Amino acid sequence: MSDEIKGLNEECGVFGVFDATDASRLTYFALHSLQHRGQEGAGIVSSDGQQLYQFRNRGLLSEVFADKKDLAGLIGRSAIGHVRYGTSGNNVLANVQPFLFHFHDGDVALAHNGNLTNAQTLKSHLEDDGAIFQSSSDTEILIHLIRKNQHLSFIDALKKSLNQVRGGFAFLLLRKDCLVAALDPNGFRPLSIGQLANGAYVVASETCAFDMIGAKFVRDVLPGELIVIDQDGLHVDHYTTDTQLAICSMEYIYFSRPDSIIHGVTVHNARKMMGRLLAQQSPADVDMVIGVPNSSLSAASGYAEESNLPYEMGLIKNQYIARTFIQPTQELRERGVKMKLSAVRGVVEGKRVAIIDDSIVRGTTSKQIVHLLREAGAKEVHMRIASPPLRFPCFYGIDISTRSELMAANYSVTEMCEQIGADSLEFLTIPNLIKAISVPDGKNTPHGGLCVAYFDGDYPTPLYDYEAGYLASLKKQQAREVIQ
Amino acid sequence: MSDEIKGLNEECGVFGVFDATDASRLTYFALHSLQHRGQEGAGIVSSDGQQLYQFRNRGLLSEVFADKKDLAGLIGRSAIGHVRYGTSGNNVLANVQPFLFHFHDGDVALAHNGNLTNAQTLKSHLEDDGAIFQSSSDTEILIHLIRKNQHLSFIDALKKSLNQVRGGFAFLLLRKDCLVAALDPNGFRPLSIGQLANGAYVVASETCAFDMIGAKFVRDVLPGELIVIDQDGLHVDHYTTDTQLAICSMEYIYFSRPDSIIHGVTVHNARKMMGRLLAQQSPADVDMVIGVPNSSLSAASGYAEESNLPYEMGLIKNQYIARTFIQPTQELRERGVKMKLSAVRGVVEGKRVAIIDDSIVRGTTSKQIVHLLREAGAKEVHMRIASPPLRFPCFYGIDISTRSELMAANYSVTEMCEQIGADSLEFLTIPNLIKAISVPDGKNTPHGGLCVAYFDGDYPTPLYDYEAGYLASLKKQQAREVIQ
Amino acid sequence: MSDEIKGLNEECGVFGVFDATDASRLTYFALHSLQHRGQEGAGIVSSDGQQLYQFRNRGLLSEVFADKKDLAGLIGRSAIGHVRYGTSGNNVLANVQPFLFHFHDGDVALAHNGNLTNAQTLKSHLEDDGAIFQSSSDTEILIHLIRKNQHLSFIDALKKSLNQVRGGFAFLLLRKDCLVAALDPNGFRPLSIGQLANGAYVVASETCAFDMIGAKFVRDVLPGELIVIDQDGLHVDHYTTDTQLAICSMEYIYFSRPDSIIHGVTVHNARKMMGRLLAQQSPADVDMVIGVPNSSLSAASGYAEESNLPYEMGLIKNQYIARTFIQPTQELRERGVKMKLSAVRGVVEGKRVAIIDDSIVRGTTSKQIVHLLREAGAKEVHMRIASPPLRFPCFYGIDISTRSELMAANYSVTEMCEQIGADSLEFLTIPNLIKAISVPDGKNTPHGGLCVAYFDGDYPTPLYDYEAGYLASLKKQQAREVIQ
Amino acid sequence: MSDEIKGLNEECGVFGVFDATDASRLTYFALHSLQHRGQEGAGIVSSDGQQLYQFRNRGLLSEVFADKKDLAGLIGRSAIGHVRYGTSGNNVLANVQPFLFHFHDGDVALAHNGNLTNAQTLKSHLEDDGAIFQSSSDTEILIHLIRKNQHLSFIDALKKSLNQVRGGFAFLLLRKDCLVAALDPNGFRPLSIGQLANGAYVVASETCAFDMIGAKFVRDVLPGELIVIDQDGLHVDHYTTDTQLAICSMEYIYFSRPDSIIHGVTVHNARKMMGRLLAQQSPADVDMVIGVPNSSLSAASGYAEESNLPYEMGLIKNQYIARTFIQPTQELRERGVKMKLSAVRGVVEGKRVAIIDDSIVRGTTSKQIVHLLREAGAKEVHMRIASPPLRFPCFYGIDISTRSELMAANYSVTEMCEQIGADSLEFLTIPNLIKAISVPDGKNTPHGGLCVAYFDGDYPTPLYDYEAGYLASLKKQQAREVIQ
Repeated sequence: MSDEIKGLNEECGVFGVFDATDASRLTYFALHSLQHRGQEGAGIVSSDGQQLYQFRNRGLLSEVFADKKDLAGLIGRSAIGHVRYGTSGNNVLANVQPFLFHFHDGDVALAHNGNLTNAQTLKSHLEDDGAIFQSSSDTEILIHLIRKNQHLSFIDALKKSLNQVRGGFAFLLLRKDCLVAALDPNGFRPLSIGQLANGAYVVASETCAFDMIGAKFVRDVLPGELIVIDQDGLHVDHYTTDTQLAICSMEYIYFSRPDSIIHGVTVHNARKMMGRLLAQQSPADVDMVIGVPNSSLSAASGYAEESNLPYEMGLIKNQYIARTFIQPTQELRERGVKMKLSAVRGVVEGKRVAIIDDSIVRGTTSKQIVHLLREAGAKEVHMRIASPPLRFPCFYGIDISTRSELMAANYSVTEMCEQIGADSLEFLTIPNLIKAISVPDGKNTPHGGLCVAYFDGDYPTPLYDYEAGYLASLKKQQAREVIQ
Repeated sequence: MSDEIKGLNEECGVFGVFDATDASRLTYFALHSLQHRGQEGAGIVSSDGQQLYQFRNRGLLSEVFADKKDLAGLIGRSAIGHVRYGTSGNNVLANVQPFLFHFHDGDVALAHNGNLTNAQTLKSHLEDDGAIFQSSSDTEILIHLIRKNQHLSFIDALKKSLNQVRGGFAFLLLRKDCLVAALDPNGFRPLSIGQLANGAYVVASETCAFDMIGAKFVRDVLPGELIVIDQDGLHVDHYTTDTQLAICSMEYIYFSRPDSIIHGVTVHNARKMMGRLLAQQSPADVDMVIGVPNSSLSAASGYAEESNLPYEMGLIKNQYIARTFIQPTQELRERGVKMKLSAVRGVVEGKRVAIIDDSIVRGTTSKQIVHLLREAGAKEVHMRIASPPLRFPCFYGIDISTRSELMAANYSVTEMCEQIGADSLEFLTIPNLIKAISVPDGKNTPHGGLCVAYFDGDYPTPLYDYEAGYLASLKKQQAREVIQ
Repeated sequence: MSDEIKGLNEECGVFGVFDATDASRLTYFALHSLQHRGQEGAGIVSSDGQQLYQFRNRGLLSEVFADKKDLAGLIGRSAIGHVRYGTSGNNVLANVQPFLFHFHDGDVALAHNGNLTNAQTLKSHLEDDGAIFQSSSDTEILIHLIRKNQHLSFIDALKKSLNQVRGGFAFLLLRKDCLVAALDPNGFRPLSIGQLANGAYVVASETCAFDMIGAKFVRDVLPGELIVIDQDGLHVDHYTTDTQLAICSMEYIYFSRPDSIIHGVTVHNARKMMGRLLAQQSPADVDMVIGVPNSSLSAASGYAEESNLPYEMGLIKNQYIARTFIQPTQELRERGVKMKLSAVRGVVEGKRVAIIDDSIVRGTTSKQIVHLLREAGAKEVHMRIASPPLRFPCFYGIDISTRSELMAANYSVTEMCEQIGADSLEFLTIPNLIKAISVPDGKNTPHGGLCVAYFDGDYPTPLYDYEAGYLASLKKQQAREVIQ
Repeated sequence: MSDEIKGLNEECGVFGVFDATDASRLTYFALHSLQHRGQEGAGIVSSDGQQLYQFRNRGLLSEVFADKKDLAGLIGRSAIGHVRYGTSGNNVLANVQPFLFHFHDGDVALAHNGNLTNAQTLKSHLEDDGAIFQSSSDTEILIHLIRKNQHLSFIDALKKSLNQVRGGFAFLLLRKDCLVAALDPNGFRPLSIGQLANGAYVVASETCAFDMIGAKFVRDVLPGELIVIDQDGLHVDHYTTDTQLAICSMEYIYFSRPDSIIHGVTVHNARKMMGRLLAQQSPADVDMVIGVPNSSLSAASGYAEESNLPYEMGLIKNQYIARTFIQPTQELRERGVKMKLSAVRGVVEGKRVAIIDDSIVRGTTSKQIVHLLREAGAKEVHMRIASPPLRFPCFYGIDISTRSELMAANYSVTEMCEQIGADSLEFLTIPNLIKAISVPDGKNTPHGGLCVAYFDGDYPTPLYDYEAGYLASLKKQQAREVIQ
C-alpha cells in the first residue's frame, strides 16, 4: 500500500522529555522523526518548573512552527509534544494536542495516542455532572476523571482514572515538576523510554525519535505501567496488573518507521522477513520483483532475495507532492496524467513482474498500480501482499472505522485479484506474519503478543461503546454474503 | 551522494506543448515530474494564438501556483514551462523563467536549460550597442541577438543567433503561433519530443514528463537541431551540422529521474549496471550492501545482486524535510541531533557494510554517513562510489564552479578514504562508467557519446570566457600539488 | 488622546441577529462597524436551527475572515459575533469569542463585553468542584454556572447565574432556537436592540452597527434586563429589579463611534458640547483651535465655534499605519522620524494654538503633541482636555488596571502642564461633563446616570475580588503624596 | 470626492536621499508619508558606493517590507524609493519602481512620477533599433535613450534624453556615486529638496516626507532643472531653459497631503481658502456644513467659518477598510449594508445641510452621499464642490483617461444636480480656484502658474501621441451634444 492512502493511518505520535536543556527544541526534532504518524496537527507544551507554555496548530510540524519565535517561546527544561492524524470532520484546532489545562492548583498538559472504547459513556456521565468539554476528542476525558478525584493525590487520581478508561492508549502528562507516561493493559500502542547523554529521560512512540536526538534506548513501557519521571529520576509503577501484551501488528506491517525497534524487533527486519516468508509461501514465476514505494521496499527486497530474483525500481514515487498541489481534472486523469506513482517503462517493458505491497485497504491503489505496470509494458503482474487480508475494523487507535470500505471484508481473494486486474494475488498467512515479527515478549501470549484482530476479528478486549454497532455491521455483512 | 547536497545540481528543467487543451495545466503536471531538476523557481508562459500570458515566481511549483487562479489565467492551447535551480546570489524573480518579451511585432517567450560559455563577451558587445538586460541570466542574450536581426525572418534570426552562442543549451521558444526547440551542437543537455494521444507534440528535458501526462516518446532532439512545431505539424531543421554527441554523464549518474530514458538508455538500468560493474571491479568482503537514499538505491541493488549479498535499508531519509524547518543548533548537532539521514541500528549493528553512493563532491556528506553507520554499531564501513572521482568543473550547465571545493580535485583516493573515515573507498573507472551507460548513438564517438570532462578534464569544446580562469585555477592547483 | 494609546481601550463589541437571511454575513458587516471596540480578535457563531457553527481567530475582522470560505461555512439564519480587545498576556486563540460549548443536550455560544468583579472567587469554587476552564477569560464562568443548574430550564438557570456574577457585563447567548441578551444591573456597558426591514431583531454594542446594516433602532437594553428573541418574537424579561443606571462616561468621551446613539444621546453631539462647555469654562487667548485626530475632532470644532476661533487642521494622522510596520530606531526617532502624527507647519507656524484632546492617560502622547507643534513653529500651545482628569481605575470593562500609570493620579494639573510642556492645561469639570452628555434616563440618578468613577473614585458597586488590591494601591499613593 | 474613488489618482510618489546613515530606512519612512500617492506597489534601491541593491513588490509599503530582512538588505548611504499607483491592466511586478539596470559600466536606478506624452513613438523607434523593454511603463524609455548615447558622459546623455521626452515628469536617478533629480519644463509634478540635520540632501514628491524624517525644506525643484547631488554637494543645472510653470492644480485640490507645502503654499490653507471663496460665491441657506471625509474636511471648515455656520461631523468614514474585505452582496447593499461611509443620524436628522466635496468624477459617490444623508433624515442637501467641474482628461500623470467617464464632460451642472439628487449643486469657479491657491511663482504666468486643463481643456503643451485620440473623443462628444 502506498502511504498516501487515507483510511489506514496511525492516529498519533507522542514524545516527552524531562529536565534537559533545549527541551522544546529537542521535542521539535523528535516529533519531526514521528511526523509519519500524523500530519494534520502538531504541538508542544513545555514547563520551566513553574508554569506550562503551549503552542499548537493544524498542519505539519514545519508549518506549525514556521515562525521560530513560537518555538522559542516554549521555555523550560521539560516538554511533551504530539503529532496528530485527524479525520476531516474533527480536524479543528481545539483537537490539536497536547492539551493544556490551567488549574489554580497547577497546570496539566496531556498528549495521547490511541482510542478509548468507552469514551461516549464516560463523556455523557461527566456532562450530566456539569463537565464542559472543549474538544470532540476522547483524550480530554482523562483530565475530567482526574479532576473528579481532587481529594486524592494527582498520581492516585490518575491511577483511578486510568482504571476507568478502556481501549488502546499511550498517555503522556506533563506537570510543572514531573512527566508521566501510561500504557493501556494490552500495550496496543508502542511507547519506549530513552536517555540522553546527560542522563535526562525521554519517552517516545517510536525509537526512531531517540536516534534523531542522540538518545539511547532504555526500555519499552509495558502494559499497565505508569512511569513517573521527576527530579528524583524514573519511577516504574502500575495502575493495573491485569495485563496481556497485544501490540498492534500494523505498526510492524505499515505504520512505524523501518528503523524503529518495537518490543525488541527492528521494523525493517520484520518487513524483510515478511517478504522472505511470503516468497517461500507464495512464489511467483517472474523476471523481477518490485516494491511499492516507500513502505513496501523492505518486504520487496526480502521477497527478491529469498526468490533469488532481481529487485528492480519499477515504480517511482514523486517526492514533491504538496498539500496545495493542483489536482488533475477527471479528463486529464483519463488522458493519463498521474501525480504520485509512475511505472518505469525501461524496467518493466516486456517483463513478468512480482509487485509487493504491504496491504490492501480499499483496493483502489492496487488497481492503479497494476494498470500503471501494464500500461508501461509489463507482460504479467503478480501481486503479493506482505500481510494477511484486512477484514475487520480497529478500535484501538487505527482509523478503519467501517467494514464496508475494506475490500477483503467484502470479497474473496479470487474476486479481489480479478477486480485489481492482477495475474495472481496472494497474501501472507497470519502464522507467517507472527513468525516474521517474532516479538520476544510475546512468546507465551496468544498470537505471539500481537493484535491481529483486523485479520481474524478476534479482539483482545470487549468493545464497549462500539459493541452494538460492530455486531450490527457484521450481521449486515453476513446477510450480504448470503445474498451473494 | 544524498540529494540535498548543494553544489552539484542540474540547473533547470523545461517543457513545452503546442495545440492541446489545458496546455498550461499539462505543463504544470509535466514540470511537477521535472521538479528534481530545480526547486528555486518555476514559471509557465501560455499562448492563446493571439497573446502570451506569464506567471512565474520563486519557490517550488506547488508554491508558485498555490493560488489556482494563477494557473487558470494562463489560457490557450500552447505553453512552455521551466523549473529553475538558482544559486543564492542570483535567486531573484527577474531570473525566473520562462522569460516573456513584448514587442510591437509579437511576443516571444524563452526557457533555457544549460550554460553559455561566451555569455560575458556577447553581453558586453550588446550593451555597448545600447542593449539593456533585465536579468543576470545568460539566457536573455539569445533574445537580444535575435532582435539585432529584425531584417531576417524570426527563424533565420534565431538560427543566426544560435550560431553565435557557445556552450550547453536546450532552448524552448514560444510565439503566438509556434513552439521552437533547439539543442547545442554537442547535445550536452537532454531534450526529447513526445506526442499526446490527440497528436499534439510536447518537448521535455526528461521523458518522465511524458509518462506523467500520458504522452508517448517520439524521438530525442539531436545536437544542432532546430525543431519547429506549428499548425502544420513538426518540422526538423538544423542551425548547424558541425555536431558531435557528448551528453552529460552526470544526467545518468545523479541528476535525471530513474524512470527517464535518455538517448535510449533507462537511467535506473544504467545506474544498476554501474553498481554491477563496480561490484566486479571493486568487491567488498561485507555482510550487506546499503545504498544512500534516494539517488543511489539503483546502484546499490546492482552491487548487492552482483555480489550475491543482502541489500538492506541501513539508512533512512526523513521524508518531511521542509524549507522552513528549524535547524538544530551546533550544540544539539554535537549531541547527536540529525535532520535528514538516520542509520538503522537494528540492521547494521555488529555488521560489515558496503555503502554505495553515486558521487563525492565535497566529502562532507560521505563523512557524516560513515560516522552515522559507525555510531549505529557497524563493524566495518566500505564505501563504493558508482562513478569516477569528480575532479574538474562543468561549464555546460552543472553548478560546480570551483575546483577548490571538489574533494577529488585536491586529494588522492587514499587521502579521501582517510578523511571520510571509511575502511576502504573505491570509485568506478571511466571505462566502466561508459560501459554501464552504453549510449547507442555514441558508439563511434569519443567517450561513447558522453561528456566525462568532470572526471578527466577533457572538454569537448573550447571554454571561451572561462578559459583564462580555468587555466589559472589549474596552475594554482599544480603549484599546490607540488608543494604537497 | 490619539486613538493608538494602549491602556485605555474598550474591551469588546458584540452583535447578534435572529432569523434573517445571510445572518453571519450581516454579523460580519455589523462587527466591521464595531471594529474600533477591539482589534485583537474576532469571531462569529451561527445557528441553522439544528446546530451551531463557529469561526474565530486573532487579528482584525478582515484578517480573521480573509478566506471567504470561513464565513460561508457559518450557515443558518441566526448568529452572534464578537470583536475583542486583549492585553498581551492573554491574547491567545482560546480567549477569542464567541465561545462555543457542545453539550449532548444542545450547543450554547456566548459573547461578552465587560468585566466581572467576582470572577476569581467564582472560578476557584467551580474548579474545586471539578470544573475545567478552557480560557483565562472571565466570560466562561457564566456557562459553568448555568451547567451547575441543569435541573432548571435554560432561562431559569441563566437568571440564577446572572444573579451570581458581579460587575459590568453585556452578554449575548445563542442557542439553536433562540438569542438571549442580558445587561448588568448598572447598565455599565451599552447594548441596543434594532430591527431589520423584514422584522428580524438585532442586538449590538453600538447603534452604528444598525446604520451599517440598514436596521432601525428599537430600544436600549436596560439594566437588569434579560431579552429573549425566538420564533415567537422578542420577550423582555428581568433577572433582577435592583438596578440603577450608571452608563460608562468614557463611552461618550472616547470609545464609541461619533455616530452611535447611547441612551438617546448622539456621541458626536455630546463631544461637541463638551468642547463648547470647555470653551466657556476654560477659554484660551489663541489664534486657532486644533483637535487631535480622530477622536477629538468633534470636541475641537465645538470649542472653536463657541470661542469664535478658526478650527484648523494642525495635526495630521497617517492613515496607513499597519500592524507589520517597521518601527524607527531610537536614533531615527531622535533625529525626528515620526510615524503616526505630524504637525502642519504651514498652519501653526508663528501662531498661538489651542489643542483639544479627549483625555490624558499616561501623558506620553500629550507631551509628543506639544513637542510636535512647537517644532513646527507654534508660538504658544494651550492644551484643553474635553473630560476631567483620569485618576482612578475602572473595574467594569475598561482596561486601566493600575493607578500608577495614570498621570492625573500622580500629579497635580500644574505639574502635568509642566511635564507636558504646554503653556497652559485645563480639564472639563465633572458637572460640565454630565451637563454635556445629559442622559435623558439619568435625570434623577446620581451623576446623571453616568459612571464617573475614573474621575472621582465613587464606584457604584462594591469591588469584590478587586477591593483589597485597590485599597492597598490607594494607601501606597497616599503615602507617596505625604512624602511628596 | 471621498478618497476611495478609482479613476482620479495620482500616479506616484518618489523620494531620494544621498549620503546619510540608514538611507534605506529613511526612505522607507519617507515613502510611508507618501503612501497616499500610490498603494499598488512600492520599492527602494540603495547604493553603498559600489553597488546598487533593490527590493520592490506589489502592495502597500508595509506589505512589501513585511519581512524586516528585505529592508535590512538594502545597505548603503544613498537610496531612492517609489510608491506606485497602477491601473489593473499593468499592475505587475515588472512595473513596480524603482527600476534597476545593471551595466558593465555601472548600475542605474530610476524612479518616475508623471506621464510621457510621446512614449509610444519613442518606444517604437527604440524597438526597431533592437531595444527590448522589460516593463509596459513609459519610465523605462529614459534609460534606453541614455544608453543610446554612451559616447557622451552620463549627465550629458541624460540631458539629451530629457530633451527627447515630452509630458509631465519628475525623475529620480541613482548611481553608485550620485543622485539626480529632473523636472519637466512645465513643472507639472511637485518635487522638493530638503536637508537632514547632518547636511545630507533629500528629494521628495511632497514636503510632508521631510517632516516625517526630520528634514528641513530647502527649495522646490524648478521646471527644466537637473539637480545633481554627489560627494561635493548639490549642483543645480538645467537641461532646458524653455520653461513655464504649470503645476497640477489637482495636487492642491485633492492629491497632496494637507500638510505639504507646494511652491510655497500649504495645501490645507489652499483648501480652506477654496472653501471660503466657495462660501462667498455660492452660499447655502442651511443649518450646518459637513465635509466628505477625509480629503474635503479643510474646505468644509473654511466654508463653515466663512458662512458662520456650525461645522458638523455628519459623515463618518470607516477606518478599518482592508484590501481583503468581504464585500456586501447586491441584495445586502439594497437592504442598506454600507461599507465605507455612514451618515450620522443624530446630527443631520431634520436639518438642512451643505455637504462640501473636493470634486466630482463619475458622480457615483456624490449620489450615494446625498442618498445616505437623506436616509438619515436630512431635510435638504446642498452640495458644494470646492473645485471647478472636471471636464477634460489629464495627460501629465493623473489617471483620467477617457472623457466618457467624467460626469461634468457629459452633463450640465443642472443635470448633474438632478442625477445626484441634491437640492442644489455649485462648483468653485476657475478664477476663484486660482485665487485660493495663489502660487507666488505663478503671478505672471497663465492661470497663475497652475495647470487647469482638466477644467478648461487649455493644455500647456502639444499632446503628441494622445493628440489624435483626444481630438476624436472631442468630436464624438460634440456630436453627442448636438444630438442632445
